[in-house]
Amino acid sequence: MSLSDLRTPAVLVDQARAIRNLDRMQAAASARGLRLRPHAKTHKSPMVARWQIERGAVGICCAKLGEAEVFADAGVSDIRLPYPLNPANADRLIALAARTRVSFIVDHPRVAAEWSAALSRAGAVVEVLVKVDVGFHRCGIAPDAATAVPFIKAVAALPGLRLRGLLSHAGQAYHAASEADLREMAAAEAATLRGLAAAARATGVTIDELSAGATPTARFAIEQEGLTEYRPGNYVYFDRTQVGLGAASPEDCALTVLARVVSKPAADRIVLDAGSKTLSSDGARGFSPAAGYGIVLDHEDLLIERLSEEHATVKCTRGATTLEPGDLVRILPNHSCVVSNLVDQAWLVNGDEVAPLPIAARGRLV
Amino acid sequence: MSLSDLRTPAVLVDQARAIRNLDRMQAAASARGLRLRPHAKTHKSPMVARWQIERGAVGICCAKLGEAEVFADAGVSDIRLPYPLNPANADRLIALAARTRVSFIVDHPRVAAEWSAALSRAGAVVEVLVKVDVGFHRCGIAPDAATAVPFIKAVAALPGLRLRGLLSHAGQAYHAASEADLREMAAAEAATLRGLAAAARATGVTIDELSAGATPTARFAIEQEGLTEYRPGNYVYFDRTQVGLGAASPEDCALTVLARVVSKPAADRIVLDAGSKTLSSDGARGFSPAAGYGIVLDHEDLLIERLSEEHATVKCTRGATTLEPGDLVRILPNHSCVVSNLVDQAWLVNGDEVAPLPIAARGRLV
Repeated sequence: MSLSDLRTPAVLVDQARAIRNLDRMQAAASARGLRLRPHAKTHKSPMVARWQIERGAVGICCAKLGEAEVFADAGVSDIRLPYPLNPANADRLIALAARTRVSFIVDHPRVAAEWSAALSRAGAVVEVLVKVDVGFHRCGIAPDAATAVPFIKAVAALPGLRLRGLLSHAGQAYHAASEADLREMAAAEAATLRGLAAAARATGVTIDELSAGATPTARFAIEQEGLTEYRPGNYVYFDRTQVGLGAASPEDCALTVLARVVSKPAADRIVLDAGSKTLSSDGARGFSPAAGYGIVLDHEDLLIERLSEEHATVKCTRGATTLEPGDLVRILPNHSCVVSNLVDQAWLVNGDEVAPLPIAARGRLV
Repeated sequence: MSLSDLRTPAVLVDQARAIRNLDRMQAAASARGLRLRPHAKTHKSPMVARWQIERGAVGICCAKLGEAEVFADAGVSDIRLPYPLNPANADRLIALAARTRVSFIVDHPRVAAEWSAALSRAGAVVEVLVKVDVGFHRCGIAPDAATAVPFIKAVAALPGLRLRGLLSHAGQAYHAASEADLREMAAAEAATLRGLAAAARATGVTIDELSAGATPTARFAIEQEGLTEYRPGNYVYFDRTQVGLGAASPEDCALTVLARVVSKPAADRIVLDAGSKTLSSDGARGFSPAAGYGIVLDHEDLLIERLSEEHATVKCTRGATTLEPGDLVRILPNHSCVVSNLVDQAWLVNGDEVAPLPIAARGRLV
């Protein structure tokens, strides 16, 4: 099948770019002796997970059990859920742990105790990592040794859980103001994990893993001392936000949306058939976030001013656009992960040839 | 199955509220002799479409051919696509028109001519409406009679197309500042359609339909003279935005998201397991748009400050929250249509009983 056969909108993945992104990140991690464990949320595709594992990834990450089940079905044998799973789903975790290596995070004493009870009752032992808040202020225990070390020690002692180590996600990197800011976040994250690990080890606790991961900080984090694992997700496709954060060049971006002009109500306004159902309404981020819901490639004069669910309303900022109804454009989205989640299938592009890329773990939010 | 059996996050639809919303809108339209043709984008469910048709709706609207195909498969026999379909999809429209009554909109001379050629070649005749821009500035011809009437006349003369009438969508209502503003928008919309219809009829063109539709303006638009059809979508479920626009009370809102507290890293911060993959990142609208990505019902002290794909980071604005990991909450989303599009299945709730509500037309963006 060729590009010109596609109905629009269509999500395109440039295979050569995606593979190059995987190769580069794997080489960077391997050069530092870091285990790479990509987060699969960006692609939600067993095919792409296999590419990652073939290149040296030790396994993958998923956010929810529903995603992990899809990848386990596809043969991925080591899955980490850097998500504060609740014991309400103990039955599913236990079933998953019986068929694949799986691990998850804990950040709350009562939840950890409930997991311990549920897993012990089932005769299961599952690896956990303690999630440490390194400044994103979402999940994770506060990184003060005085309160963190007793929690880490307590988790290490719980039956049914096997403490593997510490884990963090510097999500605040998406709000960084500069390269220097990112570099400092990466250094601070690693220092926090090293410090807590040393303090915990001093009390007799074994910490085998110091796991960090976020695409914007990857280039700095991988250089830090002490980390054993890195978990970037977005790097397989990148997007406008990663370009804005200096993590990628426009030529690295592998995921684009093919859209068609469906209306031209004025010389300086066109409507495309890709709306928030395709691009999501995620805004742009980066050191100087620019307006608009993605970039119309090769048309610097176009601004995606507004999205409805099925329409992008696009303004030409320099007079009249030459685009007419029926014309095709490519959009670089603000955020590629959420685009993957909006379609059952993307298209792998090699030159003009396209092949289906099923997104088997799309919509697995439970 | 009962509510307490559900995994989270789960999208819940209160059946009694949804039915009451349908009954009220149908009664209001019927009282004025208006044909009601709900937009199915909000529910994307053949079951809900049947409820609408059983109550008197003359058919439904869909945005894309992929949605229309799902509803045609389910037996809906009159489907309007108020979307500027491109002739690149002529094969699919022709196939659809062969099995169900279908109509769509045109707003561009070249596109109308291309459709005429494609349909004529296939020996098909399909109803079209001319889309008129009544102030949203998305699609639609400008409402000046001097340019609009010649276009309407030209469409009426094109073989393969049968001009049914004029159609508008006052999407600018989502940015209204007050009730008075909404009332004025509704009056202006109807006046524009009446004026253009009169001018077109004066040139000998037959205009059978003046179709408007948008939930925020519905209560005012239905009272206007001259309209023949109304096409609200969101009214079946409503949402926080419609409450903010005075179109619904909180007790009318039928769609909520059941979510679980999965982390409590601080006394004033919890994390829920519903993120932008469930709620979307659509912000709130209304006369005085409030912050946050939805409302946590029965917890006025909670603000959904930030969404990640699988996390809602929630701040307690008045000290410590009593919620703990494992607790369940219900969220009223900012925008219910996009929530429907994010899940393969919602749950119909009757008291404590729940039953699956498949969202068969989810993700049909082509």
